[in-house]
Amino acid sequence: MAPLRGVRIGTATAGYKAWTRDDATLVELAPGTTVAGVLTRSRCPSPEVDWCRMALAGGTARALMVNAGNSNAFTGSAGRDASRAQVDAVAAAIGCSAGEVFVASTGVIGLPLPVDKAVGVVAAAHAALGSASFADATVAIGTTDTFAKGATAAAIVGGTRVTVHGIVKGSGMIAPDMATMLGFVFTDADVAAPFLQTLLTSATAHSFNAITVDSDTSTSDTVLAFATGAAGNAVLTSVDDAGADAFAAALSDVCTQLAQLVVRDGEGATKFVTVDVDGAEDDRAAKVIALSIANSPLVKTAIAGGDANWGRVVMAVGKAGETADRDRLEVRFGGTVVARDGVVVPGYDEAPVARHLSGQEVEIGVDLHLGPGRARVWTCDLTHGYISINGDYRS
Amino acid sequence: MAPLRGVRIGTATAGYKAWTRDDATLVELAPGTTVAGVLTRSRCPSPEVDWCRMALAGGTARALMVNAGNSNAFTGSAGRDASRAQVDAVAAAIGCSAGEVFVASTGVIGLPLPVDKAVGVVAAAHAALGSASFADATVAIGTTDTFAKGATAAAIVGGTRVTVHGIVKGSGMIAPDMATMLGFVFTDADVAAPFLQTLLTSATAHSFNAITVDSDTSTSDTVLAFATGAAGNAVLTSVDDAGADAFAAALSDVCTQLAQLVVRDGEGATKFVTVDVDGAEDDRAAKVIALSIANSPLVKTAIAGGDANWGRVVMAVGKAGETADRDRLEVRFGGTVVARDGVVVPGYDEAPVARHLSGQEVEIGVDLHLGPGRARVWTCDLTHGYISINGDYRS
Repeated sequence: MAPLRGVRIGTATAGYKAWTRDDATLVELAPGTTVAGVLTRSRCPSPEVDWCRMALAGGTARALMVNAGNSNAFTGSAGRDASRAQVDAVAAAIGCSAGEVFVASTGVIGLPLPVDKAVGVVAAAHAALGSASFADATVAIGTTDTFAKGATAAAIVGGTRVTVHGIVKGSGMIAPDMATMLGFVFTDADVAAPFLQTLLTSATAHSFNAITVDSDTSTSDTVLAFATGAAGNAVLTSVDDAGADAFAAALSDVCTQLAQLVVRDGEGATKFVTVDVDGAEDDRAAKVIALSIANSPLVKTAIAGGDANWGRVVMAVGKAGETADRDRLEVRFGGTVVARDGVVVPGYDEAPVARHLSGQEVEIGVDLHLGPGRARVWTCDLTHGYISINGDYRS
Repeated sequence: MAPLRGVRIGTATAGYKAWTRDDATLVELAPGTTVAGVLTRSRCPSPEVDWCRMALAGGTARALMVNAGNSNAFTGSAGRDASRAQVDAVAAAIGCSAGEVFVASTGVIGLPLPVDKAVGVVAAAHAALGSASFADATVAIGTTDTFAKGATAAAIVGGTRVTVHGIVKGSGMIAPDMATMLGFVFTDADVAAPFLQTLLTSATAHSFNAITVDSDTSTSDTVLAFATGAAGNAVLTSVDDAGADAFAAALSDVCTQLAQLVVRDGEGATKFVTVDVDGAEDDRAAKVIALSIANSPLVKTAIAGGDANWGRVVMAVGKAGETADRDRLEVRFGGTVVARDGVVVPGYDEAPVARHLSGQEVEIGVDLHLGPGRARVWTCDLTHGYISINGDYRS
């Protein structure tokens, strides 16, 4: 990912954990940058999430600060105060209002962000602005990630080429102490904030909100999109504008790539699983059913074991609570139809299915044959590795 | 469990799998026996579940037939026909109407119940009536269960002693091929069917529907209660009747014991976990939150690892979607308050919590401090054993 007009990045070491790596990332955004965001639905969000939700109302951003190693979640007033102090320090350094500063933290829950480190690191990160690349930022925002995750796409908007860069961290929906998903998208396109929000909400529904590792939801999950406008295109304000479709596609593409990278880095994951549901009553029902399949421990362990256990898929469809007609149901693994009209297909040969399941890319397909609803979600298998990472890590 | 007046049991070998054990259980019930039931909410239920749902409308039962080794789920018209043929064979042997015959099957999904075996075994099971004990039945209805599960209680109803016996099978909410939960309760009390249904629904809400092993729901889960009336008490028709409370308590006690036994036999379980939620908006919200905690893979792996990871409990409260105030939340492990008012307690000492978590009985407590709602659910930890049982069993 090349540098992006209107974006400068600096990283520094706050020392949120006993390490020497850079764990504080400051991003300076050109004046006039618009912002949109999608935040965790957790009813116990971190103060950073609360702050972003409030600041999003303003629609503009001049800075993003990301802390890795401490999520600051469930830390009461001490955590709120520490986060606010960091926001103020960033605003002072950048020369903007606090409402234009966005923050995100990931790491241990229950330990207030150490205010001395959080504030103290701002100067160093600010001094480093321009010296760090997007690649550096992917590393600095990471925690338990086993690889750095970035994606890029481009679009032509009214004759002007615009770029969309994205970075993400996360390897489970949440984990012990560190696996919140934080995703940040940057573009040099000029996009009005309300329209950017519409596009990001839509893109997120089919990307970050269409993945699951373990069904658990972080207190800190955050996706923010920033549009600097430095490319100089005619500002995009609605789907009817020239190039809006192309920009939307690029944004969606980046979000999808990033989301898939999170699943591929899922804790203990050995297989990448695509679940397609068609023929549901509507898209909403299809997504509920798809997530029921993708979150089922029994489906996920079967995939881990390379077991063509379509009965577990039927079970997961049934438990989803959405309308299903057992006697119309079709189940596929890879390209092979295993069951149709509610019964196993005549002469079902498990061999090609077993071959498909032995690979690292697995496709599960369900057709309910009831209506036009469809959804696609991505997940990973559930393995001994997941148990080891999440159950054994203190022993 | 001693024999129960009005109940005769016979077991026989249908050979639903390649084994020589008894796998077909016939229970003959005295004329006038009333029945109630709670059936899986799966939208893809087995034909046996459909049948029971229909037959429950009649309110009386003369026979129960249980098949182990084949669930007959997702088997289309062949499965429906086979189950109906078995119902008819039982009705003919007992000399009752088909609507008084209840059936349940557990085992492989997707393979129609072999009609020759299912019908052929009826004569042998009928001939054996009276020769099998409740203990024999617990074994004959079992599949992957690692131990047989029964419970009993008694009550005085209007001066008459009545007995409640229960048997159950199950070790996960469902498993590959066999771990549906089937629970059957028998009493010699005289209880009108509508009141028996009221009591069973209530008892189930706090027992069978308050346990979770892996959040997965079987296509075949079935709980049936039969009241023969042979004890000769004045018939119970409402909570206002003398002894109704005592009977309700005995029924509830048996259901709770049976449900807890299922959790203790949870696949790969090494710890028995009680989750108490208090202070929620209402009981319904409390139960949603309790199940969110009990079903969280991250909570369950932490328990397996003996890790006092209260942050994961907060995460699970947050993701439940019910009203919660982060800054009032209290979290306990065993008798120790870990966090209060949304922050870790001053001087928190992990040592007693670690000792508690190293045991086999773990208690997680959450108080939302919002309202009067409370709920208790039971679960087990998530271990390498679960992965091995469900992921490796074909390899």
